[in-house]
Amino acid sequence: MCMHDEAAPHYIDMIDQTTLGHRYIKEQFNVTPRIGWQIDPFGHSAVQAYLLSAEVGFDFLFFARIDYQDRAKRINEKTLEVVWRASKSLGSSAQIMTGISPKNYEPPSDNFYFEVGDTSPIVQDDMNLFDYNVPERVNDFVSAAIAQANITRTNHIMWTMGTDFKYQYAHTWFRQMDKFIHYVNQDGRVNALYSTPSMYIDAKYAANESWPLKTDDFFPYADRENAYWTGYFTSRPALKGYVRTMSAYYLAARQLEFFKGRNEVGLSTDSLADALALVQHHDAVSGTEKQHVADDYAKRLSIGYTEAEKVVAASLACLTEFSKNGCVNPITNFQQCPLLNISYCPPSEVDLSSGKSLVVVVYNPLGWKREDIIRIPVINENVTVKDSKGKVIESQLLPLLKDSMSLRNSYSTAYLGKSTNVTPSYWLAFSASVPPLGFNTYIISSAKQAASHSGMRTVYKSQIRQNDTIEVGPGNLKLLYSGKRAKLMRYINSKTSVNKLLEQSYIYYRGDDGSKDLQPSGAYIFRPNGTYPIEPEGQLSFTILRGPLLDEVHQRINPWIYQVTRVYKGKDHAEIEFTVGPIPIDDGIGKEVVTQITSNMISNKTFYTDSSGRDFIERIRDYRKDWNLEVNQPIAGNYYPVNLGIYMKDNSSELSILVDRSVGGSSIADGQLELMLHRRLVADDNRGVSEALNETVCVFDKCEGLTIIGKYYLRIDPVGEAAKWRRSFGQEIYSPFLLAFTEQDGDHWANSHLATYSAMDTTYVLPDNVALITLQELDSGKILLRLAHLYEIEEDTDLSVMSSVELKKVFPKKKISKVTEMNLSANQERAVMEKKRLVWRVEGSSKEQPTAVRGSPVDPAKLVVELAPMEIRTFVIEFYSER
Amino acid sequence: MCMHDEAAPHYIDMIDQTTLGHRYIKEQFNVTPRIGWQIDPFGHSAVQAYLLSAEVGFDFLFFARIDYQDRAKRINEKTLEVVWRASKSLGSSAQIMTGISPKNYEPPSDNFYFEVGDTSPIVQDDMNLFDYNVPERVNDFVSAAIAQANITRTNHIMWTMGTDFKYQYAHTWFRQMDKFIHYVNQDGRVNALYSTPSMYIDAKYAANESWPLKTDDFFPYADRENAYWTGYFTSRPALKGYVRTMSAYYLAARQLEFFKGRNEVGLSTDSLADALALVQHHDAVSGTEKQHVADDYAKRLSIGYTEAEKVVAASLACLTEFSKNGCVNPITNFQQCPLLNISYCPPSEVDLSSGKSLVVVVYNPLGWKREDIIRIPVINENVTVKDSKGKVIESQLLPLLKDSMSLRNSYSTAYLGKSTNVTPSYWLAFSASVPPLGFNTYIISSAKQAASHSGMRTVYKSQIRQNDTIEVGPGNLKLLYSGKRAKLMRYINSKTSVNKLLEQSYIYYRGDDGSKDLQPSGAYIFRPNGTYPIEPEGQLSFTILRGPLLDEVHQRINPWIYQVTRVYKGKDHAEIEFTVGPIPIDDGIGKEVVTQITSNMISNKTFYTDSSGRDFIERIRDYRKDWNLEVNQPIAGNYYPVNLGIYMKDNSSELSILVDRSVGGSSIADGQLELMLHRRLVADDNRGVSEALNETVCVFDKCEGLTIIGKYYLRIDPVGEAAKWRRSFGQEIYSPFLLAFTEQDGDHWANSHLATYSAMDTTYVLPDNVALITLQELDSGKILLRLAHLYEIEEDTDLSVMSSVELKKVFPKKKISKVTEMNLSANQERAVMEKKRLVWRVEGSSKEQPTAVRGSPVDPAKLVVELAPMEIRTFVIEFYSER
Repeated sequence: MCMHDEAAPHYIDMIDQTTLGHRYIKEQFNVTPRIGWQIDPFGHSAVQAYLLSAEVGFDFLFFARIDYQDRAKRINEKTLEVVWRASKSLGSSAQIMTGISPKNYEPPSDNFYFEVGDTSPIVQDDMNLFDYNVPERVNDFVSAAIAQANITRTNHIMWTMGTDFKYQYAHTWFRQMDKFIHYVNQDGRVNALYSTPSMYIDAKYAANESWPLKTDDFFPYADRENAYWTGYFTSRPALKGYVRTMSAYYLAARQLEFFKGRNEVGLSTDSLADALALVQHHDAVSGTEKQHVADDYAKRLSIGYTEAEKVVAASLACLTEFSKNGCVNPITNFQQCPLLNISYCPPSEVDLSSGKSLVVVVYNPLGWKREDIIRIPVINENVTVKDSKGKVIESQLLPLLKDSMSLRNSYSTAYLGKSTNVTPSYWLAFSASVPPLGFNTYIISSAKQAASHSGMRTVYKSQIRQNDTIEVGPGNLKLLYSGKRAKLMRYINSKTSVNKLLEQSYIYYRGDDGSKDLQPSGAYIFRPNGTYPIEPEGQLSFTILRGPLLDEVHQRINPWIYQVTRVYKGKDHAEIEFTVGPIPIDDGIGKEVVTQITSNMISNKTFYTDSSGRDFIERIRDYRKDWNLEVNQPIAGNYYPVNLGIYMKDNSSELSILVDRSVGGSSIADGQLELMLHRRLVADDNRGVSEALNETVCVFDKCEGLTIIGKYYLRIDPVGEAAKWRRSFGQEIYSPFLLAFTEQDGDHWANSHLATYSAMDTTYVLPDNVALITLQELDSGKILLRLAHLYEIEEDTDLSVMSSVELKKVFPKKKISKVTEMNLSANQERAVMEKKRLVWRVEGSSKEQPTAVRGSPVDPAKLVVELAPMEIRTFVIEFYSER
Repeated sequence: MCMHDEAAPHYIDMIDQTTLGHRYIKEQFNVTPRIGWQIDPFGHSAVQAYLLSAEVGFDFLFFARIDYQDRAKRINEKTLEVVWRASKSLGSSAQIMTGISPKNYEPPSDNFYFEVGDTSPIVQDDMNLFDYNVPERVNDFVSAAIAQANITRTNHIMWTMGTDFKYQYAHTWFRQMDKFIHYVNQDGRVNALYSTPSMYIDAKYAANESWPLKTDDFFPYADRENAYWTGYFTSRPALKGYVRTMSAYYLAARQLEFFKGRNEVGLSTDSLADALALVQHHDAVSGTEKQHVADDYAKRLSIGYTEAEKVVAASLACLTEFSKNGCVNPITNFQQCPLLNISYCPPSEVDLSSGKSLVVVVYNPLGWKREDIIRIPVINENVTVKDSKGKVIESQLLPLLKDSMSLRNSYSTAYLGKSTNVTPSYWLAFSASVPPLGFNTYIISSAKQAASHSGMRTVYKSQIRQNDTIEVGPGNLKLLYSGKRAKLMRYINSKTSVNKLLEQSYIYYRGDDGSKDLQPSGAYIFRPNGTYPIEPEGQLSFTILRGPLLDEVHQRINPWIYQVTRVYKGKDHAEIEFTVGPIPIDDGIGKEVVTQITSNMISNKTFYTDSSGRDFIERIRDYRKDWNLEVNQPIAGNYYPVNLGIYMKDNSSELSILVDRSVGGSSIADGQLELMLHRRLVADDNRGVSEALNETVCVFDKCEGLTIIGKYYLRIDPVGEAAKWRRSFGQEIYSPFLLAFTEQDGDHWANSHLATYSAMDTTYVLPDNVALITLQELDSGKILLRLAHLYEIEEDTDLSVMSSVELKKVFPKKKISKVTEMNLSANQERAVMEKKRLVWRVEGSSKEQPTAVRGSPVDPAKLVVELAPMEIRTFVIEFYSER
């Protein structure tokens, strides 16, 4: 549907949008694309190469933007066209022939632009006119062709005759190209023709050339010295967060849409699918669009969400009101809370003292059984939580502190256009346990007094001064804080025996204003001009809330940074929720806000970041595998996109950080990881946005810089044992519980409703190393199923192995009539794709490397899907009719 | 052929180019235009109204650019649409209904531009899209329509949906206009339609409204305070001079082409006609184009000239070799000297001492017999001039002084690309007498010694110091100079008893650089910022050459202004030849060079300038007839275009100046007239040229500011007696003698050649008040004849009367079979034009003024053409076949 970005999108979104587009093209035009045309994105991910190119069946991937130093070397060595083997796990079975254009995606020189108003000389072939210039123009053309031929293998070169915003009047171009082709071929030194990427690659393939090998990826991208396109990894963090939230919601909503049965007419998840596809564009989720365009993207997502929300509500109503006749006019009105991030949830902010109960249906879109803490705002103190069997369960009240309230008030007013008339006082926290692809139900009702196991204690700064070390955490994990400095000092896990010095702090980079060399920091480009520590100002604000389920550490870092650190009884990681903004720019200085996690680990310049949320790639500071890096931006040039997480390790342990959205991250010093959380800048960076990245939000007529809330998750494991958390919990971060609320009079919900449900066989869960990343009913009534092995080879001792999924147990209530394995984008059968795919020769490898391990074809009787490490398999499944 | 300028073109050029265009349209499309569309020219001339609109048969004249103060008043009073009665002489018989657009020639507001890349909102009528905006856009449209309707008479308004450089992709406009028309008419408040000027004026006419009357013209034009478009009256004086020279040459060449007989194939004057037509464009002769465009115009003129030169040479060869068999393969090779202005004339720069003679054929394109001094450069001192009967006539040698030689050397090198190898030493002057539409021949040959009557005396400054008053002039006219000050002091004509104090000097205006308000002086705009006198520097250089035919006063005014004043024995005017340039701008200051003629006349703020070379219009300093002028530019706002001349008068005398090309002129102080001769500026004036008007010329790689040479002519007459000189001599300035040279061995040219010739009956000349402005053979073998009465009513006691021309005597050698009177542009019969012309009602005039006097229809037997004052009559004449 679009030319997606390759840094900010999650691989599931990349798959979804590509599937939507490829199936559309197939349906409308009966065409199966052979070429990946990623001509503009600002850096290129390994996932784009091996998944979104090789696994969709492309024969070639084109793009233009790679590091200027890399390009110079490749031009010099004629290695602009390569075989890209981007997956350690899948190796040559998922490699893609790749062409990098020698300059950009424009005509070969400034001399061949023919848009209305362009100044390149037209081909004047009327000899009666003064500006007759056929010989000169033919020479220009031939010179440009030969110059490119000199840096290209084989006798074939491609010119991209156009660029952004061109062909608004196509005639202006074609008239000139017609003439060029005519006169150049008359000249005969070169042969010019209208071509297509397909024609080009067929000619290249026929030349039977061998090509250099490329591994890993093409991040980060700099188009010249001091112009690293690493700012956009974080630009518009609120939009990036919204996209991630919607992505997860869409995954869950499609499951529920399927359980209910997709309607041919009426509500569907389609408009959310469209909006999500669109927003993967390389000037959308990337944050590199004008403000009004960003607003439009968010609006489309919101419209899509609103429709999907109704599909979800209807499906849950159907499932909870389950009858043998299926879903007929369900009556339950489920509400949801998309604004829980700003503590705003009208269905839970109800007075339960009159005897009403609040029913909370908790849906788990993962294929695993799962427990997690749920937090909802409530107005009553005296509430109790019961499980679906009517048993009171442990819960905890946490006061809604003034900083959260203030944010809730202003942002809910901005959202609603008026103030809310109810004010919750507490967060109610309780633990929910939910089966795979299913739900559980909890009932919240009024109690004579607060349940005894709800505990709330606040410890204020003044009280803790005496005691220099404060221990936080109700379970295995303890965080030790310095009371004096109000700072994290140490991370201790009694179960894993990890005990590490650990600090966490904020800094900002001053965004260069371009006064030196007209290259400011901007939406695309990260150009720091000085590092400034952010120290708490004045009296340290440091509040600790303790309870049976979790402890919270509240810290006001400065007037525009607030932080809550949560340690849960049942979780061996810390959750850090940051509230950043409005970043002040009244001093005329743009700021890029970063959190730094500092340990004493000997990380040896090395750290790891994921590729589009999937493979982890080793990064070495101030170093590139492919060329001898000339370091001119020691900070910006070491930033990488982080979608899932970033980690470092030493001989004893691994420190991992997982994120809730895409951000930029790095390790600028050994033992330290950093994430850029938010940025607000004052100048445009001259790459096409033509606006400073200066997000504001208005409440009525008062506007201020945008405040964002986000979370990251931190854990230290013994070395070699961290992948399980990164992969499994990473999946939980991506797919949080989906909450639906309704009210009932009294306490008899379970009598009349199905309180707990799993779509899968109740005895079955997916293997720990497999995630269900697509379950979607197609228009044809068939379903699309995608299963993903979550581990790379050698990533985990136990889980980097072949795994298998029993389809019969995934769909216990239906009978499968046919399983067709498809390519990744589901526009062709996988077998067909494999058969027609071109096999490009790799330079110097007389024998190909041993074929990667992959799951066997699915036996139609057994219906078991095998998945090798990092394998994603896509199926169209048909069922026998239920009637 | 183009939308001609109305300030810089001569009316004959305006007629020629319009005729070329109108006849082309008639021939190609059988269409006779009804509308004058002068939407862009920067001020509008009376001649455009009564001649080029009324007399071509237009029903309406549209334009956009009038003074902002005038426009404000007209908007206020609903007088943007007027009946323009521009000719005093022809009155209501040559008036034109005129529409002035309320703003410019663009869409009604910034909100209706639809070129590719424009930012006006499109009409989004897809209700499913976020930017659906039909109601808003309809409201925008209706508001704009009503706003314009409120300042317009009748219910009809016109929108010009486009502007410069638009419709490069017409679809972008029409798609939006289609939608506007659809939805606006659905709305119903106004009715919108695709229209044409014709449809518009038919609707206006049907409304039977009465319209205000407008007289005179619309000069000067200011689009806002401090932005008077009066600089272009002088911009590119060399191009303006070249155009005028070519215009005259074209007139003469067509005559000669006809005498020889126009060939259907082969050489013709057509390419000169095309080039001249093109260069009348309002960004051509106006001087308001980029340098490379100006170069292209000059190149086209040069190409056209080169072809016409051959036609002329061939015709003169035919006529001089006249035989009874007509013109069959003439052998004489006539050369011409288009670069006489830089003293460069290869055919006359020949060594005659070997016995060769130089034959000079002098052609007179006027309808009157005429005497004039001819000057050609020669290398020998001992030369004699004989008339066609072999009689030696008086001649005079004038040394070619070093200033002229230096200019000749550099400009001839620039022209030829190499130095000349011959250097003339003298100008040879002699008087030629030539019959109307005919030629005479003079023979120049070597003599033993310089003819005794050739005299040369030089008086140098040092010698004249003692004598304070120096009298110059061999005839009636004496100019008195102060020897000490080297300045003109007094003008005395013994015949007319005029004796007046008279000074002449140079100043420059500093061209504003725009630093105050971004409005610099530029190609269009004259924005003076201070007046600076130019005083001779150091030792005064003052040389007087005296002789029997003329005296010359040479003055070096400053390093970049040189002046020669000539007083001829037989002429009662002074001829001032100025050489101006390179104007220095190394001080970063643009300069606009002006000559001032100062008398003690009580001119009472009043002066007169011609309209496009024809009618004289009264100008009053700091005053406009049509509104109460707010004076903010006391110099620029009083400048007017001068094509023919400028004069002032008081109770006793008239001081007239005639020019050799179009320039800007004014009378900034009583008793004073001034002409702007040259301008060189450093900033663009933001009206579309996007270049500073900074003309340079390069000799090999050395470039410097352009030097120009020009002439003006000055005479003082008793009051009421000046028109004769202005009209008759004005015609001589426009149509100088055409010189053709050839060599012969010995002295027997007259034996073998026709030495003198007139196309007219030898007993006949045209009346003094009539000029033949077109004599041209049409492709059809018919001829086009245009006769112009040269006087306005009441301009001259004797000559402002009905006159008549006897066609039989104009064409004595042919027999006229048919005379058809045409409209001015000769695309329809005059009678047809008169019949179909719309008659617009004038406000407040219950009775029309008495019809102007005009000549009667031509009696086909008598074949006499009557011409009333200022009347121009156009005829297609057919002859009986000569065989």
